[in-house]
Amino acid sequence: MKKTSNKKNKIPEPTILRLSAYRRALQDYKEQSAAKFVSSRQLGELANRNASIVRKDLSYFGEYGMPSKGYEIDHLLDQIVNIMNVKQQHAVALVGVGNLGKALLGYPGFKKQGFSIEVAFDNNAIKIGKKIQEIKVRNLKDLPLEVAKREIKISFITVPAVAAQEVANLLVEAGMRAIINFTPARIWVPPKVILRHVDLTRELEVVSYYLGK
Amino acid sequence: MKKTSNKKNKIPEPTILRLSAYRRALQDYKEQSAAKFVSSRQLGELANRNASIVRKDLSYFGEYGMPSKGYEIDHLLDQIVNIMNVKQQHAVALVGVGNLGKALLGYPGFKKQGFSIEVAFDNNAIKIGKKIQEIKVRNLKDLPLEVAKREIKISFITVPAVAAQEVANLLVEAGMRAIINFTPARIWVPPKVILRHVDLTRELEVVSYYLGK
Repeated sequence: MKKTSNKKNKIPEPTILRLSAYRRALQDYKEQSAAKFVSSRQLGELANRNASIVRKDLSYFGEYGMPSKGYEIDHLLDQIVNIMNVKQQHAVALVGVGNLGKALLGYPGFKKQGFSIEVAFDNNAIKIGKKIQEIKVRNLKDLPLEVAKREIKISFITVPAVAAQEVANLLVEAGMRAIINFTPARIWVPPKVILRHVDLTRELEVVSYYLGK
Repeated sequence: MKKTSNKKNKIPEPTILRLSAYRRALQDYKEQSAAKFVSSRQLGELANRNASIVRKDLSYFGEYGMPSKGYEIDHLLDQIVNIMNVKQQHAVALVGVGNLGKALLGYPGFKKQGFSIEVAFDNNAIKIGKKIQEIKVRNLKDLPLEVAKREIKISFITVPAVAAQEVANLLVEAGMRAIINFTPARIWVPPKVILRHVDLTRELEVVSYYLGK
């Protein structure tokens, strides 16, 4: 996982990732229980974290919990949603309509997180013009024009690993603010661009290693 | 990412993950260059790591490189492949043939890493009996029998998040040695089972946070 610079931000990245886990845990808890409050110990158990880590993470944005009661669940959820900026819907361009690209086009989890794939690109003439999950596949050559027209600032890269860097360069030139790389390739972008890596196979090698023990 | 216990193993997990990166970097380098040797500095650059980290990681299995020459590429690759146990092919059962499950059934990256999905399960009568990417979807009820018959010890969970724990319990009972959870849900398994988590949406929340700054 490539680290994104967070010099300008007060909240450290490990806390951001845990806030995301707390949010999901709180949402689950709300669905399953009538409780209005949650203690740091409870939240820690729900999110599989230490209570003291929970308290530290929440203190970054001024949440301390009440003695004997803990944190008010709805308020805490609102706070986390605001900080994580997850209320906003983000339009996404997907580049590479192979097996993985098609899969991500059909995966409902992104929309739930506020990321909606609005346009897809490929350089394969057989794919261009076809519709996948209501999204028309467009010619990669038209990417700069299309993303400008739609004001898209976020891209998913799902091309074969060997083409990942080339596509990243194209996306940076087209003015992307964030790129999520779903290929196993490592890519480089200027520091102003947010780069994240979702590698589907990385964890498999760890499994492979432990199975060999 | 849930940590897997590695008390019995000499090589720390961060090193395992980097070895996987070195392997890919070395394979790419071999394809692009006629070089027989690589220095720790070069390998560090290829894998986007520090040369001293590279030297430390490789020293875990007795590789130190020759002065002025560095490491012999083929030998190093063989060593890493052996340690990572990636020569072995692993049979995998996939549980949950929704959008994500279908996607993973069609994703060639797993086979390249030595993980071959041999059987798929769902509890939806409409899906059972259908073939997806040459794999017949079977009734989840038949899982214990089918995995025993095929001696499958690894499973991918691609069911909806709410059903992930229940499926994990079933898999543990059926004798799985490793489970890779592709849902956003956190699940618990006994320590003897290797558990890894590939969360497709986790990185998106980080992007969302930084885009809001």
